Amino acid sequence: MRRVAIVGTGLIGASVGLALKAKGFAGEVVGWDANAAELQAARELGAIDSALAGRDAVLETDADVVVLATPVLPILDWMERLAPVLGEDQLVTDVGSTKREIAALAAGLFNRPGRARFLPGHPMAGKESGGAALAEADLFRDAVWLFTPMGAEESAMEGSWRAAVAGFGARVRDMDAARHDEVCAWVSHLPQMVATAMSAMLEDEFAADAAEKAAMQTSAFQDDLRAVGGRALREMTRLGASPYSMWRDVAMTNTEAIAATLAALEQRLAYVRENLRTPELRDEFALANRFRAKRG
Amino acid sequence: MRRVAIVGTGLIGASVGLALKAKGFAGEVVGWDANAAELQAARELGAIDSALAGRDAVLETDADVVVLATPVLPILDWMERLAPVLGEDQLVTDVGSTKREIAALAAGLFNRPGRARFLPGHPMAGKESGGAALAEADLFRDAVWLFTPMGAEESAMEGSWRAAVAGFGARVRDMDAARHDEVCAWVSHLPQMVATAMSAMLEDEFAADAAEKAAMQTSAFQDDLRAVGGRALREMTRLGASPYSMWRDVAMTNTEAIAATLAALEQRLAYVRENLRTPELRDEFALANRFRAKRG
Repeated sequence: MRRVAIVGTGLIGASVGLALKAKGFAGEVVGWDANAAELQAARELGAIDSALAGRDAVLETDADVVVLATPVLPILDWMERLAPVLGEDQLVTDVGSTKREIAALAAGLFNRPGRARFLPGHPMAGKESGGAALAEADLFRDAVWLFTPMGAEESAMEGSWRAAVAGFGARVRDMDAARHDEVCAWVSHLPQMVATAMSAMLEDEFAADAAEKAAMQTSAFQDDLRAVGGRALREMTRLGASPYSMWRDVAMTNTEAIAATLAALEQRLAYVRENLRTPELRDEFALANRFRAKRG
Repeated sequence: MRRVAIVGTGLIGASVGLALKAKGFAGEVVGWDANAAELQAARELGAIDSALAGRDAVLETDADVVVLATPVLPILDWMERLAPVLGEDQLVTDVGSTKREIAALAAGLFNRPGRARFLPGHPMAGKESGGAALAEADLFRDAVWLFTPMGAEESAMEGSWRAAVAGFGARVRDMDAARHDEVCAWVSHLPQMVATAMSAMLEDEFAADAAEKAAMQTSAFQDDLRAVGGRALREMTRLGASPYSMWRDVAMTNTEAIAATLAALEQRLAYVRENLRTPELRDEFALANRFRAKRG
């Protein structure tokens, strides 16, 4: 592995570049981003040695490893464009948040005679907001970095990339792509959608109420919320601050799994609602207590 | 105010006793608890000067202020028993988590000729678990302490109690009782029920799955959950550890308001589910972002 190209030099892409440099990677790291400011920031940070001149230069890259570090929909676009032009010895990998659609597309385009290899990946790391300016060489230390391998025998370049990722301090783990998306729907996408829905609902409730009551009483709903809402509210709505731009592609490419978890939670909330005065509520708390006890 | 009787010497009741002592209250603090160990612990901590001999001794108390610090259903019981036997100059107050049923019962029993006064209260303070052993004189510092006054003119003893509470470092605030329960349903009871439902659902999902897959693959759902679940999952399910014993009376005495917020969230989740691939999801994130931006 002598040359790495990073496509998308935001928080994750730029952190990959910094981690490579910090771990003594002696080769060249080049990068490109559709946003000129992000590209410039990544270069100034030293996350990349040089910026590629444009989209066409990405397609002409002779990098051993091409890391696709954009949101999922642009990753799918780049895969379509790169597959016909890269060579058999090159490896393409990605850091997208969902894996099923990426793995399915890769199965048709890569890992066949004359085509480059593809290894789908997903580092479970991030920050509340994105951007190259927040990138860190240590972002992946102790984080889980999932791969959803395509089933083919591991190539030498794949081995090099896995070793580099382990060198970042990440805990490497393999998982089936469909399984990845199902588990992520339960533990990441569902919590996000619940926090967004609760925050949006409270915003609606409060805004209408404040307008209605402004003339009538000084103690408006906003004041009441501020007085009464404590840690529980803060925690359950914190993810409401997440930007749509980070979640649109997740919702687009894991729709069925997310919809299934939402439908399951709707039913579960209805069950709690119908049992607020029955012993079934005790059993529900007992199950919840058991889940938490295992997770410390 | 020369004598205070605390009925229920758990976390909140014992902390009230400690706060009174810490602020130089020169009178006597007596206490009683149905649980002998809690009563003993409160006495050893110095939260109360002496333990009342039993339920009958509580009914014979000549305390100027009787603080009901049990869960809500026993508070309602004590109100029924105390109303006929206390005198006009005595004040009863409480620290229950819901206020509408307590205020409604108080309206029929107290604040009339020959009867004691009643001032419903709710300190917004607590810990993950209860018990006198965790009591602290500073538990109420900077916490909001809500009162839902009954409308009658403030008595001298009510003024003394409000001054004592302000002396604990709490921020005293008055609110309508029905309004209190409605706001608490949105910002406290709903988040609890959502965390409980999510935790219970994941426990079911994981347990069934683990049994089913144990023989088939080493990478069971529990391992996957552990690998993938991060801060989002931890935060959204933390309240799943809350004990039923603390929430039963809340669910029993604020059933309609909690059911209304749960039904509203069920609809909101269905709306998100139906719009995972439409621009409406963008609007939902924007509303949620606006809610969070106001709350820092």
